[in-house]
This record gives sequence, structure tokens and C-alpha cells, in this order.
Amino acid sequence: MKGLFITFEGPEGAGKTTQIARVKEYLADQNISCTVVREPGGTAVGDLIRNILLDPQLAEINQRTEILLYAASRAQLVEQVIRPALENGEIILCDRYVDSSIAYQSYGAMWSLDEVLKVNQVATGGLLPSRTYLLDLPVELGQKRIKSRGSKKDRMEQKEKMFHDRVREGYLALAQSEPDRFRVIRADAGIDEVFRQIMADLESMLKAKR
Amino acid sequence: MKGLFITFEGPEGAGKTTQIARVKEYLADQNISCTVVREPGGTAVGDLIRNILLDPQLAEINQRTEILLYAASRAQLVEQVIRPALENGEIILCDRYVDSSIAYQSYGAMWSLDEVLKVNQVATGGLLPSRTYLLDLPVELGQKRIKSRGSKKDRMEQKEKMFHDRVREGYLALAQSEPDRFRVIRADAGIDEVFRQIMADLESMLKAKR
Repeated sequence: MKGLFITFEGPEGAGKTTQIARVKEYLADQNISCTVVREPGGTAVGDLIRNILLDPQLAEINQRTEILLYAASRAQLVEQVIRPALENGEIILCDRYVDSSIAYQSYGAMWSLDEVLKVNQVATGGLLPSRTYLLDLPVELGQKRIKSRGSKKDRMEQKEKMFHDRVREGYLALAQSEPDRFRVIRADAGIDEVFRQIMADLESMLKAKR
Repeated sequence: MKGLFITFEGPEGAGKTTQIARVKEYLADQNISCTVVREPGGTAVGDLIRNILLDPQLAEINQRTEILLYAASRAQLVEQVIRPALENGEIILCDRYVDSSIAYQSYGAMWSLDEVLKVNQVATGGLLPSRTYLLDLPVELGQKRIKSRGSKKDRMEQKEKMFHDRVREGYLALAQSEPDRFRVIRADAGIDEVFRQIMADLESMLKAKR
């Protein structure tokens, strides 16, 4: 794989979407094209799965189904978009990936880590990002940011504070266990400072790639 | 589990739907209620997944996604319908289950058996049927029956003869490896004779259950 597969992780409200947009803009200014994708979704099939997962009406989705649906959307994204782009030498900026499933479904919802890993191994064929930026944020702050957006909360966002504490703990444990892949960035540092830290790291990866 | 979990397997055109309807009618005549479910689908979430899977427009669904979507629909059905019914002592007649995934996705589409098994282990939590009736049919005959229905072929039915040869081989291998669970019935024996063979076996299971 000649491309660069970069994922952005962290809680709702950490600013992943904003940072991804800025990175894309920065790369475009340098005539470097990149593909931005988000999970769940990012393909026609994945968007249909996303609709099922984020529908607040469908409260009856059970945990096993949820794990499998996220993985199904991911499988489609990997095969249809990410692998072809990487083989083509492109840069992929991905909003959430396997680490989200581990943090939310295993740590957060306390489902078997072994089962989440097995299912995601099948979904991705073992494809991991070259780099993962974890935008880490105290839970209270993330929750406050989401509220201030005034947006209708989706099913995930309705879950309670303890859940989000476990998610954060999961993310930090993942980062600690894979220090080569992860960069943990304090998301409360301000948009410009977060961006500066991401680019300082990304620039060195781009140089190595050239 | 006090109930009885019975699945019907075999190719399109083998008469599963017809036999399930007759068994249900027969049980109703004896004041034995049963729940009939079909895969994929059988729940609100599962029906949405079914729509994705059987949409001939969505030819781009890749193999990993397909395995995970079938498993997601199955997980929801097991948790929401099958387990509660079995715990309540009920009889479940299920049109397709894990054996279909093994026969179609592993044998038929030649995907890793290990991966199909792992994903389905997560989906079902290991729940297997008490009895599986495999309605076995020469491939040519099944294909002819489907054609004579004149129904628009769905994505699965469009697949070619060699695929269906492998599916049949897979089913027969499964039946051979689990002789206690499987009963193989020649589906070209005529509707009444197939039904007679199913009921001869099912009657003895019902007696043992009383």
C-alpha cells in the first residue's frame, strides 16, 4: 500500500470534523488531494446502514446487531473506497474506524473485547491506519459542546456520562498500547493549536512518503 | 431453554416456505402455537437489513459486508424473537439460519469458513437449532422451479449453477457432520411426501418434549 491511511478518533464534540476539513484544505493548498470518509457510512450501502444505526426510533437494536452493523458499514468502506485509494497512493482521512468500535462497543457498552475484535478483523481484513489522531477531551466538556450545538441528539449521544467515561478510558488505553500508531492531542487546546499539532506530525509523515 | 428451535434449510425452490406453512397449520390444528420467522428479516431492524441485502440495485455489496449484514439481521432475530420464545417454551420454525450462511457464503461464494463461523458465533451467541430439516434438491430442478414461478429473480438467485452446486455440497457436508441435528429430506419427493417425512420426525420430538 503506497497511500496514507489516517483516522481521527475521539468523542462527539472533540472537533474531528472541523480538523479533518482543515487538514483537507491545507493539503489542497499544496496540491495534495485526499479522500475524506466518515463512519458509519461513506458508501451507498454504508449510508443505508448508517440510517438504521442512527435512527432514534430504532431503540430496539441490540448490542450484537449494532457491532455487526458498524462492522458491515466498515467492510464496505474498506473494500470499496479505502483499499483502492491506498493502492492508488492516495491519502485517506477517515472520521472514526475500528478504534471507535472498541472504545464505544467494548469499553463503553461493556461488550466482549474479543468479539468486537473478531468481527472487526473480518470486516477490515486486518487493515489498520498508518496514523490515528485521538482528540482527547474531558467528558464534561465534550457533552457541553454537543449541547451548545443545539442539534438533535442521536441515539449514541443520548447515552449517559458513565458510558462516556469508559469510552474515554478505552481510547486512552488503545493509544497507550499502540504508541507508534496513535497521537493523543488535547482537544480543549483550541482549534488552531489542535490543528498545529496534527500538522506538525502529519508533515513529517508526508515528507517520509515523498 | 424449554422450547423447540427448528430450522428449514435448502436451496431456493426446495419448498421451505410451503412446508413451514403446512407444519404451522398442522400444529395449529393440535392447538400448539408456533412462531414462524424468516431470514434475513423477521424484526423491524432485520427487515431494513433485508432490504439492503436483496436489493438488485446494490450489486456493489462486497462479500465481507454481506456476511456481516446477514449476521446482523440474525443477531437481532435471535435476541428479539427466538431466545424469548424458546425461554417461553414455544416452538420456532425458522426459514434459514446459520447453515445458510455457511452453505452460501463459505461453500458457495468460497469465503473463509473460519470467518463465517466467527461472525456467526458472535451473532447467535452460539445458539443452534434443535432440529434442522435440509430439503435437498438437485440444482437443475431447483432452478427450474424458480423459473416457473416467474418471479423477478433477486440478487442471490442470479448466481450461477456452479455456485449452487457448491451450496448443495456445503449443505450435505454440514448434514453429515451433525447427523443428530440434521434430517436430510429429498425435496423432489412431492409436497405431501416431504411433509409426511418432516412430521414423522417432528412428532417424535414433540412427544419427547411433553
